[in-house]
Amino acid sequence: MPRTDLLLALDYGGTKLSAALTGIGERAWRALERVASPPQHDAQYDQTTMCALAHKLLDAHTPRAIGVSFGGPVDAARGRVILSHHVPGWEDTPLRDQLQQEFGAPVSVDNDANVAALGEYRFGVGLTESLHPERSAAESKEPSLLYVTVSTGVGSGIVIDGKIYNGADAMAGEIGHTICDPRGPECICGRRGCVEAMACGPVIARAARERLLAEPDAVTKLRELETRGTLTAADVARAADEGDELARAVMDDAARALGFGIGTAITLINPARVVIGGGVSKSGERWWQIVRASARSNTLPQMRVAIVPAALGDDAPLWGAIALAEDLIARG
Amino acid sequence: MPRTDLLLALDYGGTKLSAALTGIGERAWRALERVASPPQHDAQYDQTTMCALAHKLLDAHTPRAIGVSFGGPVDAARGRVILSHHVPGWEDTPLRDQLQQEFGAPVSVDNDANVAALGEYRFGVGLTESLHPERSAAESKEPSLLYVTVSTGVGSGIVIDGKIYNGADAMAGEIGHTICDPRGPECICGRRGCVEAMACGPVIARAARERLLAEPDAVTKLRELETRGTLTAADVARAADEGDELARAVMDDAARALGFGIGTAITLINPARVVIGGGVSKSGERWWQIVRASARSNTLPQMRVAIVPAALGDDAPLWGAIALAEDLIARG
Repeated sequence: MPRTDLLLALDYGGTKLSAALTGIGERAWRALERVASPPQHDAQYDQTTMCALAHKLLDAHTPRAIGVSFGGPVDAARGRVILSHHVPGWEDTPLRDQLQQEFGAPVSVDNDANVAALGEYRFGVGLTESLHPERSAAESKEPSLLYVTVSTGVGSGIVIDGKIYNGADAMAGEIGHTICDPRGPECICGRRGCVEAMACGPVIARAARERLLAEPDAVTKLRELETRGTLTAADVARAADEGDELARAVMDDAARALGFGIGTAITLINPARVVIGGGVSKSGERWWQIVRASARSNTLPQMRVAIVPAALGDDAPLWGAIALAEDLIARG
Repeated sequence: MPRTDLLLALDYGGTKLSAALTGIGERAWRALERVASPPQHDAQYDQTTMCALAHKLLDAHTPRAIGVSFGGPVDAARGRVILSHHVPGWEDTPLRDQLQQEFGAPVSVDNDANVAALGEYRFGVGLTESLHPERSAAESKEPSLLYVTVSTGVGSGIVIDGKIYNGADAMAGEIGHTICDPRGPECICGRRGCVEAMACGPVIARAARERLLAEPDAVTKLRELETRGTLTAADVARAADEGDELARAVMDDAARALGFGIGTAITLINPARVVIGGGVSKSGERWWQIVRASARSNTLPQMRVAIVPAALGDDAPLWGAIALAEDLIARG
């Protein structure tokens, strides 16, 4: 098979699978395929479907390198999936070795929030603006970025010195499970008042439902949606944006909790930039203002609080996977 | 002047100055000088005294490289002291350039908690035990260590990939100003319930005094010391170790708060190891057990909580300074 300059990016999400193809040094996709997963899919279904997607894109060519984003904890050094919280059958899977065998190319695998962080760093927010405009290149050796994704949960990835920082147990950056308020609501992790339990999408929807019950006389456009049983965090955000008082109160609480967690992370990690992505980050200017103000008030005055929206959107994990593939080639 | 293999380590503390000399690859001091600073000393006094100490040690030889630990925020990339919280006159001082000129050798400067972290990593706790005994050398590429010092304040330093991690504003690792309890006691930073405001030495002494006042009938050996006006955190720790109930209650609260902060740091940074030094870390086995249990209960079950005592004691910043000097030589 001839040696190509093709780079393959794979993104294993809990509800969808994506594969994309580009060339070394290129900054646009040559081709991209995305398919929604059926309910009750498992690891074997995911793997069969992903390989079919990738073979279709590759059209019998061998890629030079493959980068992989996986939606769950990954032992990146060994290329093994630890498990998926959403899809059964992924426990302790040697995904790197499986893909290397299937496609005959070197493979690098990491967790989706980590990979998205690298994508934003290399090709998104980190590219569009210099992280240290006031410093010389020699002094800017340690650019760092914290990527936070807020959707069904709150995840994050850390880039230090241009590389994903995994931590000793491949668990670094669990901002969703830092605590805002020890007396706060219960979290799926068993503790109370975690950022995730106070700021993610399902929590926003639930908090709105609880307020509707607690305030039966409040005038709010959310009541009708709730009666239909379809109330989502996006509905609450939209209503808040349109001035609905009850929706605003709910969104403000969630934004404050997220900002508190980001402030804690800044206090410990002091990144050059914090990038927020995920569905909840599309909640409008008021939400952003409260997140920023809350982060500022929960860190030290000497620390910069540069919190910006993700630039790559849903493609961040795929572009991060391309960065992983490029790093494989650079390492030889 | 002949080229030597001498390495000079300087440690600018708030209350004392230390200088020590060793040779490349050596692991014992050839000479060490430590002097207590007089009350009301300033930056100029510190600098004159330190240079005199160093010249005495060097005995007209030129060192190959100089590492410096400074007790306050430092812009390590530029070798500049930002300020000292304890000693006036240090604002925006080009310490690296001053020392390079004075001694004719390359100089590397960083904050004392950072330098102590590097010292423990390279020559202390990190040396005595493998950080990843279950992994091959190739897989152990990212050893990381969080060093926490608990004395008049709570400071910390982070080592990632074998190097000090400074953060974008040279402020990374401010674990003392992460929040345990938003309703907790006021902190010097202006917020409430910071780890420092609940766990450092002066806070332990103050909490004991407040309990003595609030519980006038409690039988405790601390009452006599308090009447003499000399009650310190070390007294409270000693009494707790001897079974004094009031002293135990105070120490337990402080240990729980510190453990909470360490748990938060583990959740975000997931270091291979946490090392605790500083005077309060000598508070006995009960304090250590509570710190460890509190950290464990404030992080995720998948994360290791390896919390160990510092191995180098007061010499950690000096040995860290030697590591900085060795890194200068390695870089050429």
